[in-house]
Amino acid sequence: MTKFLEGKLSARIKVAKRSTIRESLRLIEQTDIISFAGGMPDPALFPIDLIKKACDEVLTNHSEFALQYGASEGYLPLRQEIIKRVASANKEEVKIGEDEIIVTVGSQQGLDLVAKTFLNYGDIVIVEEPTYLGGLQAFRSYGGNFIGIPCDETGMQVELIEDKLKKLSNQEIERIKFVYVIPDFQNPGGRTLSLERRKKLITLAEKYNFLIVEDSPYKELRYCGKHKPSLFALAPRGRVIMLCTFSKLFCPGFRVAYAMGGKEIIYQMVTGKQATDLCTPAFNQAVLSYVLEKDALDPHIEKLISVYREKQKCMLDSLDKYIPPLGMPSIKWTKPDGGLFLWMMMPEHIDTEKMFPKAIENKIAYVMGTDFYHDGSVKNCMRLNFSMPTLEKIEEGVKRLAKVIGSEKGIICRKQVRESMKGKE
Amino acid sequence: MTKFLEGKLSARIKVAKRSTIRESLRLIEQTDIISFAGGMPDPALFPIDLIKKACDEVLTNHSEFALQYGASEGYLPLRQEIIKRVASANKEEVKIGEDEIIVTVGSQQGLDLVAKTFLNYGDIVIVEEPTYLGGLQAFRSYGGNFIGIPCDETGMQVELIEDKLKKLSNQEIERIKFVYVIPDFQNPGGRTLSLERRKKLITLAEKYNFLIVEDSPYKELRYCGKHKPSLFALAPRGRVIMLCTFSKLFCPGFRVAYAMGGKEIIYQMVTGKQATDLCTPAFNQAVLSYVLEKDALDPHIEKLISVYREKQKCMLDSLDKYIPPLGMPSIKWTKPDGGLFLWMMMPEHIDTEKMFPKAIENKIAYVMGTDFYHDGSVKNCMRLNFSMPTLEKIEEGVKRLAKVIGSEKGIICRKQVRESMKGKE
Repeated sequence: MTKFLEGKLSARIKVAKRSTIRESLRLIEQTDIISFAGGMPDPALFPIDLIKKACDEVLTNHSEFALQYGASEGYLPLRQEIIKRVASANKEEVKIGEDEIIVTVGSQQGLDLVAKTFLNYGDIVIVEEPTYLGGLQAFRSYGGNFIGIPCDETGMQVELIEDKLKKLSNQEIERIKFVYVIPDFQNPGGRTLSLERRKKLITLAEKYNFLIVEDSPYKELRYCGKHKPSLFALAPRGRVIMLCTFSKLFCPGFRVAYAMGGKEIIYQMVTGKQATDLCTPAFNQAVLSYVLEKDALDPHIEKLISVYREKQKCMLDSLDKYIPPLGMPSIKWTKPDGGLFLWMMMPEHIDTEKMFPKAIENKIAYVMGTDFYHDGSVKNCMRLNFSMPTLEKIEEGVKRLAKVIGSEKGIICRKQVRESMKGKE
Repeated sequence: MTKFLEGKLSARIKVAKRSTIRESLRLIEQTDIISFAGGMPDPALFPIDLIKKACDEVLTNHSEFALQYGASEGYLPLRQEIIKRVASANKEEVKIGEDEIIVTVGSQQGLDLVAKTFLNYGDIVIVEEPTYLGGLQAFRSYGGNFIGIPCDETGMQVELIEDKLKKLSNQEIERIKFVYVIPDFQNPGGRTLSLERRKKLITLAEKYNFLIVEDSPYKELRYCGKHKPSLFALAPRGRVIMLCTFSKLFCPGFRVAYAMGGKEIIYQMVTGKQATDLCTPAFNQAVLSYVLEKDALDPHIEKLISVYREKQKCMLDSLDKYIPPLGMPSIKWTKPDGGLFLWMMMPEHIDTEKMFPKAIENKIAYVMGTDFYHDGSVKNCMRLNFSMPTLEKIEEGVKRLAKVIGSEKGIICRKQVRESMKGKE
């Protein structure tokens, strides 16, 4: 970099890290590598005919609004459709007002606006370990610091928060602006926060006076088990900001998402959005609005669920079949009730970042886990996506992955394990 | 606001001001008020058939990319089309590389990303007086302070900059990150920066080592006079970041814009965009890409120019005809060579903000000038938009405006002037 530029850059951009996912995707997706990286929906499932019909309808009857500048808070008919939707029995079952919702350009913009609205340099965000790296990026870019809380099978270990807080000064506690949590089929861990922990987290937020930012992009993609009420539904209004998106349910290419929260908070986020991009594209909102109005989204989601459920099963079955070592507790993976990802945990001496070139050599890609930790401290994990590849590629990809892992020092590959165990059976 | 929330908000959002334009538009546009506020294109000119064709083509042949997540720097085929376009003889005539451009959600996001990339709290931006308030909002939200330079008929009085700088310490000069300039048919003033001043500004930027952010949304909407080379074209690469948009040339509802600059700067802006919203909607970019590929934009721009030229003439003629007082130098307005706005300057004792309720009572709206000044110091100006209303409404609106202004203290309305002048003729 030129010295001139070095001197001009902001502190935030100097420490900003690009997403290794987005960087590596650019390379991976032009080759014959099977990719478990990324978090993309299956393009074979895009509702093209529905979108065609919606575009035509919008351009024929609503062009005056759909092609013009729109309100920063979002296209009113879309907000009204969303309000109806979240009130219904199989969704959040909450009634919100038109001033308690803002439409955003993807949920990433929701994260950006939350950070813009609440974070001063040095403020603190409580995050899961691991957590969504786009959240870390957004919070870092406004000077956020982190307190990490590890996850187990039922999500963030909420009961550890209070111990951490007790070690802080009152001044430090005041700098905690919010806890960032992805309660449903978490990215990257795939875990779902238990109802008990949801309630406990709200109690803590009330006691220590911080907000909760609930990021729930996958919630409607549940493949088994029972729907859990959102923190937004469980808490008093104003305590939780819930981020939702149509990227996984409709398609990412329209970038339509929304945030719900207390009206005072939404007001501030709208102010922030004015300075950020004026408004979300009206056309995209009008198309979504038509799709919701025609009740066309829910049948599409049913279709997504049936395909992704099968893909997830295929990945889990393949992992059971191919991943070494048999019967040893050192390689584990999550079995999420929904979403797009599994999380795989290796023996501690394995560094998935160092292993990555070998994976690419074997034409299989994953996302190394390190970037999902605010402090980069955990090296032995990886995130595996199953929504994008075909069933055939999932099985073949897991085979390749097993070969890569099996060739690591200290890992006994399945065949050897079987042979060494023969005598004992 | 609840005390709880007050304590949690970031410093930047506490001082953020909403755009009075965006706020008042919401009220104005649902009534029979004639609005010279806003800065919207005429919806009667939206190229609906072209967009229909483009949507259909994109959905039929490019859905796999257009409906998926895209690269943070923008859809490659669109960037390639833009690169071709800016290289052509009647545009910027500059050759840029694929890594010297980023696609943004409107130029407002360009402003946000520039601020995110360069501004630390307390850094300085040199701005025109008046200047685009969305620029002020974006820079303020990252802690920017301002040095204002007044404009005259040929734009920012660049020759005054050096005097201002001489009063600053070296440390303060180092905190000047960039000058923000809208050189063509400026918003709100309508003025165009002379070639001489463009060159002078570049020389100063090199001497004092600051960047130039050239915001040029209206450049291709020129109604008379000769095209002026952009600062981006005149300066060494890396010195100028140029913001351009399709909002005024195609339609605002797609929110597709782009920034061009040195590749090191664009790299940093892409990093910033990852954390802000991941990517601009791929669908919107693919539609624009098709429109450019088919050479369909330039003929559309010709149409816009012929209609807007006529509307501008209508507004100028109506102002000449109706605005009091005849022959007095105290009410002046600009006669821009292009763009969407005129700027009207009243006698100093008139406060256009205080006059606004009377205007609304008379069913005519404008934007008060105060918000376009970084320090809010100028009260006696207003911005008038002529792109949105019909010819009939422009004339009727100016009549109403003349009545409102004529009823202000110290303003002699036309009829009275005429009568009082009779004896002297």
